[in-house]
Formats: sequence, structure tokens, C-alpha cells
Amino acid sequence: MREIIECVPNFSTSNPEIVKLILNEIKKTENAFLLDHTFDDYYNRLVVSVIGDKESVLDAALNGAFKAIELIDMRKHKGQHPRIGAVDVVPFIPIKNVTVDDCIEIARKFGKTLAEKCGVPIYLYGEAATSPKRSDLDWIRKGEYEQLAEMISKPDRKPDFGPAKAHPTAGATIIGARKVMAGFNVNLGTADLKVAKKIAKALHSMKGGFSNVKAMAAFIPEKNITQIGMSISDFEKTPLYRVFELLKVEAARYNIPIIGSEFCGMAPLKALIDIAAYYLKIDNLAEDRILEIAVQNAIEKGGYQNQS
Amino acid sequence: MREIIECVPNFSTSNPEIVKLILNEIKKTENAFLLDHTFDDYYNRLVVSVIGDKESVLDAALNGAFKAIELIDMRKHKGQHPRIGAVDVVPFIPIKNVTVDDCIEIARKFGKTLAEKCGVPIYLYGEAATSPKRSDLDWIRKGEYEQLAEMISKPDRKPDFGPAKAHPTAGATIIGARKVMAGFNVNLGTADLKVAKKIAKALHSMKGGFSNVKAMAAFIPEKNITQIGMSISDFEKTPLYRVFELLKVEAARYNIPIIGSEFCGMAPLKALIDIAAYYLKIDNLAEDRILEIAVQNAIEKGGYQNQS
Repeated sequence: MREIIECVPNFSTSNPEIVKLILNEIKKTENAFLLDHTFDDYYNRLVVSVIGDKESVLDAALNGAFKAIELIDMRKHKGQHPRIGAVDVVPFIPIKNVTVDDCIEIARKFGKTLAEKCGVPIYLYGEAATSPKRSDLDWIRKGEYEQLAEMISKPDRKPDFGPAKAHPTAGATIIGARKVMAGFNVNLGTADLKVAKKIAKALHSMKGGFSNVKAMAAFIPEKNITQIGMSISDFEKTPLYRVFELLKVEAARYNIPIIGSEFCGMAPLKALIDIAAYYLKIDNLAEDRILEIAVQNAIEKGGYQNQS
Repeated sequence: MREIIECVPNFSTSNPEIVKLILNEIKKTENAFLLDHTFDDYYNRLVVSVIGDKESVLDAALNGAFKAIELIDMRKHKGQHPRIGAVDVVPFIPIKNVTVDDCIEIARKFGKTLAEKCGVPIYLYGEAATSPKRSDLDWIRKGEYEQLAEMISKPDRKPDFGPAKAHPTAGATIIGARKVMAGFNVNLGTADLKVAKKIAKALHSMKGGFSNVKAMAAFIPEKNITQIGMSISDFEKTPLYRVFELLKVEAARYNIPIIGSEFCGMAPLKALIDIAAYYLKIDNLAEDRILEIAVQNAIEKGGYQNQS
């Protein structure tokens, strides 16, 4: 498996039975490898990470999407995370020996196939977007599933593939290509969603926050707390420690303790290195100074004789 | 390169010409791979990290050691780091598909060869030690090069290989097997070595500090500051953030700022994960949640079909 692409499909379900059936479709795909999956009732959303070569990652994503469209009924869907369809967002991400252009190509193939086979309208976003406006996921998702029927008839919301008509149970699907990003959730020791929303706002790029951060607030009923859910697109320019420290500052303003955090999806190594380097005041901690990475690089180079 | 052993030889030199010649010997060894090297005038010491399979890592370490014994004259050596010989310490560390026992075997081979070919007395330490006392490097190194002639004649300081007589220019060599450990240096904004020594003492296992930590203080003339040099053997039991936070507490007591830190040698991934998890309050951040590691594991498993 020389070329590696990651796909992180987001499905609008947290029903354990449906989750299992979708994951099975992904797992059974030859040469694809399920890395991770998380789902939560309060988001009512399943986030999967799967890797493979160009062909197998496309197959795995399609297999999962077919099952999701078969089983999820958006007319009954409720959840705190914005969503437009059963297969809500499907980004393809270059990991090794592939380019963003390769991922755009796969995204287009995926979109075309899903539109043809299931009649779901498809929007391309991120690097695969067909206009600058469409590179922003939130712009496409505006109005969510509930207003899709109305929004989709507007000329600038015409889908890139498939009918200009919402699929009754599956809504629409947003497909794209992007670089690796970090998903990071922070739990706050308050049940007050209004305050949590103020904190999220302070961080969000569109609202004056960090330019690479999207942040939203959610209420977690089973714990009676709130959560700031973030995605940080360029975490080298906007490192996680800086986002976390600002979040601490804003939370302190309301005397709200930070209870805990978690990565949503896979944690990029560079993000961790930057956190460790900041708090321990380490200068220039390069990735190849990490033992496990250096060992792996050496194996791939096949020993010293090939070194320049 | 299926089996991987790391060797971290410490040579008593910081002469750039000699450093270059030693590194060349290591680099030219077939199937061995030089990962890292650092050397400092104030320690007058070269620390190398090289990996390979059993045979090549042994060859690389021997090639480096022969050159060091040829070029380093301990009679002229001065440095702030304790040392007993030109090739001071040579640990072998199991990384992949090898056991500590494999490393003990290599350490013994290395010691026997060095003793026979160069007439250098050899002590085995760590997991390779021939008595409990000898597992501690510092016990063997007591008196350093300067008192070696006297110490070596004591019955309990009889070398494991080679003559019971100090090599005139190369002293003695300590060879062993151990697990991966973390070397971590913290620079203090003070030139007062007496205070730096008090801080080091607070951390050191033998002096009431953390049970897995060795700490020493050194003066760095070119920066007119001091440094706490630490080795943390079991960094899962005694995580770096805890050591760093205590160091901060002790430094604050004397109003001394922490200027910066660095890993000495390679940084173990688990140590970084624990740092990031502590400061960002992340629960259970497992190694296989790191994207780069998960991708590597998937490649090694050869795709999903081999997954259980």
C-alpha cells in the first residue's frame, strides 16, 4: 500500500445498529483499513476514518454511503451538529505519495457515482469546490436538511452532480478534498449552552476568532455539561495550545472549569509535537526527532546506504 | 530490516574533527542507520543514536568505538558530565521484534570484542549487569577516569571483560542493555551552579526525588547559564510533565526562569503524548489514535483483511 488517502465520512446517525452496519460495509472493502470511528447521541453523528489506496478508499467510502442512504431517514433526524444529509460530508485527504489533485479526482468520482446510483444531489467543497464560495462547507450547508428543498432551487446552490432536488430521506451530500486537520472537543463544567456559545464564538474564524478555527457549542444531556467542538484546519499556523489557552481565558471569564478534552477522529502528530514543545519550552522539536518516526523513516529508506 | 535495535553510544569528545570521524565509521556500516547525534563543549561528550538489526547495530557500535579509542586521549579530557573512558557508555535498546535478552547478548559480544581487540576493561550494566549493584551506571562510574586505576583493583570493581587495568588513553567502557528512556535538558536563567545543583538534587532519585529520574547540573559558559540534564528511565511511570512541573516549582523558589528545553537524543512518542494529554486535559490518548502511527500500523498489517 504505497499511496495512502484518508477519507473521513460523516454520517447522520448514532443508532448503534446502523453504525455497525455502515462500519461493516467499510471494513469488508478490500485493501481499505478502518482507523477510527466515533459517534455521539447529542450530535447524532458518526465520524469514520478509513485509509486505503485510491481505488480502495473510494470503494470503502461508497460502500458505507450506500448503506447509510439505505438506512438513515433524515425526516426523523435530530442532532446538535449542522447537517444536510444522511451522508453529510465526505472529505478525501492526501496522506502519502498522493496529491490534493488525486483527492479531487476521487471526490468527483465519488460524487458522480453517488448521484447516479442513489439520486442524491452532490456538492463539491474544499479543494474540490467549483467556485470559491463553495469551498466553505458551512456556506453549502446553510439551512441544513430542513431548508434544503428551498435552498437547492436557488441558482447559486445548484448541485455539482445529481438532481437539483433534495433526496427525501437522504437530503444532499457534500464531498471534497482537503489537507489533514485536527478535530478537538473541550468539555466545559457548565450546563449553560448560552455561555458555551459565547466561548465558541470567541474562537470561531467567521466571528473574529482564529483564522483556521471553526467552533460550535453543544449540550451533552447525559453529563449535563456543554462542549466546544472545534475543527482546526491549518494547525501548524494556528497551533492547538494557542486555541486551548484562549479557550481557557474565555472560560475563566465566566468561572467555568475545563473538565476534559478529546480529539475527534485521528490526532495529527505535528499537533501533538507543538503542544509538547510549547508547554515544556522545547525549541525546534522536529518530527524526525521522534524515535518511532525516525525508525519508520529509516526502514522506508532501507538502511543507511541509501541516505544522501 | 525486521528486527530493530537502537544503540546510544556516548563518546568522551566534542572535538568536531573527531566527532566527524567517529560518525563516518558508524555511517559506513551496512544496514545501520544513524538517527541522531549531539555534542556539547561543556559536557565534552558526543551522544549518538544508531539503529539496525542485531548484526549491523553491533558492527556500527564497534566501528565507532574503535575509532574513538584510536583518537580520544582521556588524559587530556575535561568535561562536566561524569565519564570513565573514551567510549564511556554503550547501551543497546530493543525497539522492534527483539527482546531485552537479545540486547544483553549483543552487549556481551560488544564487550568481549572491544576488550580483546583494544585491551579496554569492560563493565556490563543495566539489564546486562552481572550483579545487582552493577546495574547502576553511576556506581560503576564512581571515581571516574581519574580514579579508575585505583578503583579497578578493588575486588567488587573487577571488569566483566578485559584486563583489571585502566587503558591509559581510553580508560574503561560500560556496556549494557536497557529499555528506551528519555533524555531531557532544561536551561535555567541563572549562572549560579550551586543553585542549579540544588534543583537537580530535588529531582534525583538517589536524593529523594522521582524514582525514575537522574538529574545533574552543568554550567554552559557560552551562554552564561546553567542546565539541568536529566535521564528519565521509566517515563510512563514518571511522566515528563510531572518532572518539568516540579522543576518549575523548585526554580520558582529561587526566582529562576526556565529559558528552554531540549530532548537529548531521540524523543519517545509516548513521552510526548503524555505531555500533550496532561496540558490539554485529554483523556486516554492512545498511540494508535495518532494518525501517522495508525497509518503505519495499517501498512504493516497489510490492509484490513488481516485484521482480526
